[in-house]
Amino acid sequence: MKTELERVLPMDIEARSFGIITEELKGKEFPEEYGPIIKRVIHTTADFDYADNLFFSEGVLEKALDAIRKGADIVTDTQMAKAGINKKVLAKFGGQVHNFMADEDVAAAARAQGTTRAAACMDKAAKLTKPLIFAIGNAPTALVRLYELMQEELIKPELIIGVPVGFVNVVQSKELILATDAPYIVARGRKGGSNVAAAVCNALLYLLDETRTGK
Amino acid sequence: MKTELERVLPMDIEARSFGIITEELKGKEFPEEYGPIIKRVIHTTADFDYADNLFFSEGVLEKALDAIRKGADIVTDTQMAKAGINKKVLAKFGGQVHNFMADEDVAAAARAQGTTRAAACMDKAAKLTKPLIFAIGNAPTALVRLYELMQEELIKPELIIGVPVGFVNVVQSKELILATDAPYIVARGRKGGSNVAAAVCNALLYLLDETRTGK
Repeated sequence: MKTELERVLPMDIEARSFGIITEELKGKEFPEEYGPIIKRVIHTTADFDYADNLFFSEGVLEKALDAIRKGADIVTDTQMAKAGINKKVLAKFGGQVHNFMADEDVAAAARAQGTTRAAACMDKAAKLTKPLIFAIGNAPTALVRLYELMQEELIKPELIIGVPVGFVNVVQSKELILATDAPYIVARGRKGGSNVAAAVCNALLYLLDETRTGK
Repeated sequence: MKTELERVLPMDIEARSFGIITEELKGKEFPEEYGPIIKRVIHTTADFDYADNLFFSEGVLEKALDAIRKGADIVTDTQMAKAGINKKVLAKFGGQVHNFMADEDVAAAARAQGTTRAAACMDKAAKLTKPLIFAIGNAPTALVRLYELMQEELIKPELIIGVPVGFVNVVQSKELILATDAPYIVARGRKGGSNVAAAVCNALLYLLDETRTGK
């Protein structure tokens, strides 16, 4: 057990962390272009399982970066994911983050339809007219509703970050997205979280932001 | 791979999740009183490692619940942890959540002292006069500074939730806290996170809130 504190300047902590992650990932196989995303998720969780369970649709990175460049907004299913996303960098490209979980009309719609508020949030998001990235880190019901809205051609996401966490319909909701033609980044299995959703968003943002490390 | 969606009413999802977690924890040994905390952290991460790496100081549960009952505030090291804590339930007992990361005086103090903003936040928190619970899910530098402030008798936390995540001084910062007499809940090792910090807070809050499941 290490007990002595390592001397690292505040500004160097992140780079040092990414150095350690890169070192420990040696031998793992994944396309190099996805390295910054995989590493930032591991940076956020200290969980190397994400080197194996993150799945990327073909060409998703270029599509995602294009969407951000053209000012896409991000829709989250938790206030926590919204809190974790670097909104300053997103704003540089004209985007903002939406979360409707606390909205009265969403609560009313969920009650009326016998669904979750997270699912009702997706209906509300479908009415937005900007290009949209969905970052779903908590509620599989949001991901299922998003899938249905795509099937009904009521929504066409630029990117789905499908990383809800948990035990009830989480695995299944992700498999639904993996079977679509939509651009996706999905954490297959039970793992994920609001922190993971925010980390994926930030990894994408930092690829476009010259001032950041962890690429 | 399960593909068929399980039919579960929105209000029953959490209870069903906790049922699955309880089932899969069979055979793991931990004091029953800590079950609600361990299970809620697993609920938040889908990571059963937390059944082994959460450490509790003697009598911490009663001390933590007493602190909440008497209106303790919670100090976090990220906006994300603050976003994840159930502030409505905390307010029932007279508590609120503080996070100073975006404060101009904190940024200035960090620059002047060559430390992180998270560490400077602890100095600011030390000036609060209410009983305090610290929920540190991100920055080991915050935990180290908290330790120093305790050594200097400038602060006496009611509870330290020491669950920063990462690769630089994270392990060491937690060992510092484990060696104190302070009431603590610590995720030993590299794992943790803002989501874990919030989950521990919520587990404690829900133990005091009759209306909640997951106990």
